[in-house]
Amino acid sequence: MVSVKAVLEGDRRELARLLTLVENDDPKGRAALNELYPHTGKAHLVGITGAPGTGKSSFTNQLARVYRNPAGGAAPQRVAIVAVDPSSPFTGGALLGDRVRMKDHSGDLGVFIRSMASRGAVGGIARATAAVTQVLDAAGYEAILVETVGAGQSEVEIARLAHTTIVVEAPGMGDDIQAIKAGILEIADILVVNKADLPGAEKTELVLRASLQMGAGTRRPAVPGGEVWTPTVLKVQSLNPVGIIEAYDLIQDHRGYLQRTGEWQRRDRERLDSELEDLLKAELFRRWVDVKSESNWQAALDALYARERSPYQTVEILLKQSSDHS
Amino acid sequence: MVSVKAVLEGDRRELARLLTLVENDDPKGRAALNELYPHTGKAHLVGITGAPGTGKSSFTNQLARVYRNPAGGAAPQRVAIVAVDPSSPFTGGALLGDRVRMKDHSGDLGVFIRSMASRGAVGGIARATAAVTQVLDAAGYEAILVETVGAGQSEVEIARLAHTTIVVEAPGMGDDIQAIKAGILEIADILVVNKADLPGAEKTELVLRASLQMGAGTRRPAVPGGEVWTPTVLKVQSLNPVGIIEAYDLIQDHRGYLQRTGEWQRRDRERLDSELEDLLKAELFRRWVDVKSESNWQAALDALYARERSPYQTVEILLKQSSDHS
Repeated sequence: MVSVKAVLEGDRRELARLLTLVENDDPKGRAALNELYPHTGKAHLVGITGAPGTGKSSFTNQLARVYRNPAGGAAPQRVAIVAVDPSSPFTGGALLGDRVRMKDHSGDLGVFIRSMASRGAVGGIARATAAVTQVLDAAGYEAILVETVGAGQSEVEIARLAHTTIVVEAPGMGDDIQAIKAGILEIADILVVNKADLPGAEKTELVLRASLQMGAGTRRPAVPGGEVWTPTVLKVQSLNPVGIIEAYDLIQDHRGYLQRTGEWQRRDRERLDSELEDLLKAELFRRWVDVKSESNWQAALDALYARERSPYQTVEILLKQSSDHS
Repeated sequence: MVSVKAVLEGDRRELARLLTLVENDDPKGRAALNELYPHTGKAHLVGITGAPGTGKSSFTNQLARVYRNPAGGAAPQRVAIVAVDPSSPFTGGALLGDRVRMKDHSGDLGVFIRSMASRGAVGGIARATAAVTQVLDAAGYEAILVETVGAGQSEVEIARLAHTTIVVEAPGMGDDIQAIKAGILEIADILVVNKADLPGAEKTELVLRASLQMGAGTRRPAVPGGEVWTPTVLKVQSLNPVGIIEAYDLIQDHRGYLQRTGEWQRRDRERLDSELEDLLKAELFRRWVDVKSESNWQAALDALYARERSPYQTVEILLKQSSDHS
């Protein structure tokens, strides 16, 4: 059994154990999360996404350092990094980048790092990510940086769950960059051109600014007539590092905007709505499977495989049979 | 109303209209798909996935040409390309690459090209992709090349729905390539190193071969003691083009393997099972929403937002309330 009290008091070992239970959708994890849930709602969730090769991990690492040592003598914030990575079926373990990351922050108890395997999570990565961030939120991490590898739909969805979404680009990412930008520009609160010392950084920056301007008219204030957030494009070099403090400051500006305008609460509720719908769907299906007639089910599958009935027709007949029975 | 008969007879305009209805999950689309479904199950579904910038589109284009002009005087096959692209909220339309693609095959009635916006599809991109490929299958396209942009989880899932999955890599894609490879190596039937004229192609090939060898022991035959498919690494240059005929031949070899071993049927059933589960979940939820008590729902949301009840606890109380009512 995991001690919820220990997690709330900052026990990192108990926290890690609980996160594993939560990721596996273990009943003990659910029970602990029910207890922890009243302590959530305080953390700033920052999504960091972008295509492979843009250097997201280095950027996230450097950003965490600024949270630990903010300029102007401000108090350091406790920060958690959640890295959503494709899992390896072969190594079954932590990725190389993960170990580098750990080393960067080793000895700093104000930083907690967690890698999630996108295909290991029971019940889907979006659900597991939501649960993991809630645990970290309750455990007192003031900022949670959720870094997602890739530029696919699920990554965009995870980023959308954040209060603040940062899209990382890099110069010279090839032909597909146009397509990627189109899909993620809409969700970006802050655009970072990483590796700004490479050739082509200015061009990437210009293209991003122009694209943002094209779409400027589609941005709407949270309340009619209210303040609108204008996404900013920022050049950074994570390895040197250059521009990281500016990125941190922009994130704090965005946080202020969210809180002033009520957008913080709106995004919070949207995230909970989406999580609730996902859980309801899963639970309704689980209960239906529990009571379904095994012989009807097999007959329906056989007709589906034999192309006698389409998937839609199969759903209709299965649901009709179960309502006739009850 | 769409004419199913016209679609079966090869009318491209009616086909395009039906695909739009199916993508929007329109009831007329569902009705037509029910009629078409008995004609499905013949097409070879080939998934082509990989990170942005690897040149997947050019590769897919060249591959379609070989389907139209196979070596050794074999009969040309009718081929459909389904490109699953991130959608642009600003332009709202076809991407540049799409128009290039159209031009490549213009005038050839044996090639049908369809772009799908990953965020436009009602009910999720995986569901829409499954329905679109079924329509094309019924319409007589013998090979359907499903190309997915990105290397995220949803793309991997779409690729997994194919009979044959091709993962495209390119030299020098940065640090994240290790992570991506780890996640997708398991699903690759054929690995293509595109842009093989660029420096580093040999290294990429070697790394891929070594990774495959590490995981070789985890591959299992479709039937115990039966034949095992060994994924092949192939260097190609889509722009010149070099190695495309070899890629086509490998795809046909894989098709033969699938049919010899019963794996074709197994993958077919797995795809239908997954589609059925998805549709059942959506329909169970829709029916539940239709009959739920609006006042209970609002009270439950308020308690959720106020952190009084966790998402899990909210699901439990909502389902208890509705079973008490019925």
